[in-house]
Amino acid sequence: MREVAILGVSMTKFGISEKTNLEMFTEAGLEAIAKSGIESKDIEALFFGNCLGGFEEGQLHMAPFAHAELGLPVSAPATRFEAACATATVAIRHAALLVGAGVYDIVLAGGVERAAKMGTPLATRTFAMACQAQYEYSAGITFPGVFAMAAHMYASKYQIPLAELKTHLANVAVKNHRHGSLNPKAHFQKEITVDTVLNSMMVADPLQLFDCCPFSDGAAAIVIAEASKAKQLVEKPVYVAGMGQGSAGPLYLQQDLTRLRARESAVAQAYKQAGLGPGDIDVVELHDCFTIAEILALEGFGIYDFGKAYDAATKGETALGGKVVVNPSGGLKAKGHPIGATGAAQVTEIVEQLRGECGPRQVEGARVGLVDTLGGDFGTVCNIILRS
Amino acid sequence: MREVAILGVSMTKFGISEKTNLEMFTEAGLEAIAKSGIESKDIEALFFGNCLGGFEEGQLHMAPFAHAELGLPVSAPATRFEAACATATVAIRHAALLVGAGVYDIVLAGGVERAAKMGTPLATRTFAMACQAQYEYSAGITFPGVFAMAAHMYASKYQIPLAELKTHLANVAVKNHRHGSLNPKAHFQKEITVDTVLNSMMVADPLQLFDCCPFSDGAAAIVIAEASKAKQLVEKPVYVAGMGQGSAGPLYLQQDLTRLRARESAVAQAYKQAGLGPGDIDVVELHDCFTIAEILALEGFGIYDFGKAYDAATKGETALGGKVVVNPSGGLKAKGHPIGATGAAQVTEIVEQLRGECGPRQVEGARVGLVDTLGGDFGTVCNIILRS
Repeated sequence: MREVAILGVSMTKFGISEKTNLEMFTEAGLEAIAKSGIESKDIEALFFGNCLGGFEEGQLHMAPFAHAELGLPVSAPATRFEAACATATVAIRHAALLVGAGVYDIVLAGGVERAAKMGTPLATRTFAMACQAQYEYSAGITFPGVFAMAAHMYASKYQIPLAELKTHLANVAVKNHRHGSLNPKAHFQKEITVDTVLNSMMVADPLQLFDCCPFSDGAAAIVIAEASKAKQLVEKPVYVAGMGQGSAGPLYLQQDLTRLRARESAVAQAYKQAGLGPGDIDVVELHDCFTIAEILALEGFGIYDFGKAYDAATKGETALGGKVVVNPSGGLKAKGHPIGATGAAQVTEIVEQLRGECGPRQVEGARVGLVDTLGGDFGTVCNIILRS
Repeated sequence: MREVAILGVSMTKFGISEKTNLEMFTEAGLEAIAKSGIESKDIEALFFGNCLGGFEEGQLHMAPFAHAELGLPVSAPATRFEAACATATVAIRHAALLVGAGVYDIVLAGGVERAAKMGTPLATRTFAMACQAQYEYSAGITFPGVFAMAAHMYASKYQIPLAELKTHLANVAVKNHRHGSLNPKAHFQKEITVDTVLNSMMVADPLQLFDCCPFSDGAAAIVIAEASKAKQLVEKPVYVAGMGQGSAGPLYLQQDLTRLRARESAVAQAYKQAGLGPGDIDVVELHDCFTIAEILALEGFGIYDFGKAYDAATKGETALGGKVVVNPSGGLKAKGHPIGATGAAQVTEIVEQLRGECGPRQVEGARVGLVDTLGGDFGTVCNIILRS
């Protein structure tokens, strides 16, 4: 396989937008192309992520329309990927695999979503379609419930009093909001306190409103190229060191909700390909759809032992300046979560961190970064390790 | 790139089913695996196509659940593709690219759809979401209208009286129903006459009910492997000679509805990779969603000159025993069109034709076959050339 690099990256401001999916993706895509020192005609394929466009806009088959808005050549196939919240990461992984294989030299990948305008009840119902519909949705499971169960199991398994765990969970939210306050593209740019979380509305016990990421609108896109081409085009290519994708079926087949089998497989694939391990990671963008999810992910990566990450945010170990900086962008919690765009925004943040372009939220000396995106209730995990 | 081969293939009976998407895909997938002389644990990745599961069953993110039903390993990523009616073909192309690249040695690919139970009004509306929603759907365009316009333009461009063209279109339906009558898996297994078509309900002038393919339920799956591995496992591997995928944006950007730019690009890519041309093709499974679509496709391939394929079915040139056999399975018209499964069923038919396993509908001496699937109103075309 050839070495693969990332050139231009771009994301729209995340939040609530009046724009269509196509308008948002075009904005991100054209900027990523311009930052790569190329033109639309140079793109050889589009790997496009979107999850809910059929519901939100009545638009299926969006990839060729995005392709048209971007002015890509007819010979450049546009392919849509859907992997629930891991949609864009899966699209990027396939793009990088095919560039590595020599099928394409330079491609565009990314994703887009409109979720904010649905409102919470419809969005919650629509997101829940990424659970196993036949068994789980009909039983009343939505995502806050899934992660609430995981939080209870975590507390029980490691014998952490629930009130204590709730404070540690709140500290994950406080940290990610602090990071988000330094990110002008974040949906939420306001700092919060532990009390903000603990006094907020209960969503699914023990998870309160501020334990949950928002429904956001947004798009993100990246240009991926064979490394020698990338070196000619941009000053600081960032390299794809390793990737992995794992699948673990419905919730009722999970043996332990505190350990995601799909992640453990995916991250092992990525470490192996990269020749790296958890100790090499300087900065992480991970899937903190709920605060408990950040703790589970850090343990899944092996950055913390199982049962040991619960107080990492409380101790300041995962904040800017800490030993491994987690979600410097603000994460899904504060940067926002337009589901089909999330993975591409995570890659965008890591690329900009490894280039030293992140200003007040820069992780000093970051050389290796990990992207982690979870789709559905533990169905899909995709990991990408990037290096400068 | 390594040589890539197809091992076991399988499709469910197409028609109206009481089964869920997961049940149908599991049936096809397990049979394809069994026919390949392997077990589920040997599959290294799943390339899964589905288009409308979110609407029809409230099920997004279906790939990891299909993966679970099939008992695939957690390390084998399950990825969902959506490219409107070209969904499964695009999934198969990506599977074959990654096997060719050496990323995987043996994978499962295919697709599934439930469309029959929606009923015609809801299914027509739902399918229309693969048009450009912002401009076309709101203007009242659905797929019968798109292809009716193409038929009018074809008649006008080549100065064929509409009544005459309608008889030729009817002969496409008659031929495909005759082929379907020889296929025990076909949705429709009854022969019809030209009068059946011309006396049927008008759908979108000049297209009548029997010019249109049905809404069907069904699944199809194939196992793809590196060629040397395939030779050890099955008696008659069929080889992927060439593939192509093209994208051409919304209808309003099409310059000529009688010529599909996405197809002309896709088939040129496939011919180039295969080192073959239109004269080498013995058997074709093409996207006859409407009778006019078969004529446009045959001209797009270069098998007929532009403006010359309109009476090919009338002359018997494309029937069993003709110079190039088109849709021996019955095509979308008679075999049926469960959209997310269609491309995989086309590949299944060509593979079985090249193996000489098609009984009364066998194309004698078939060595090279072409698969053609169109997604949306000309947005995506994917072509695969197979050889024995």
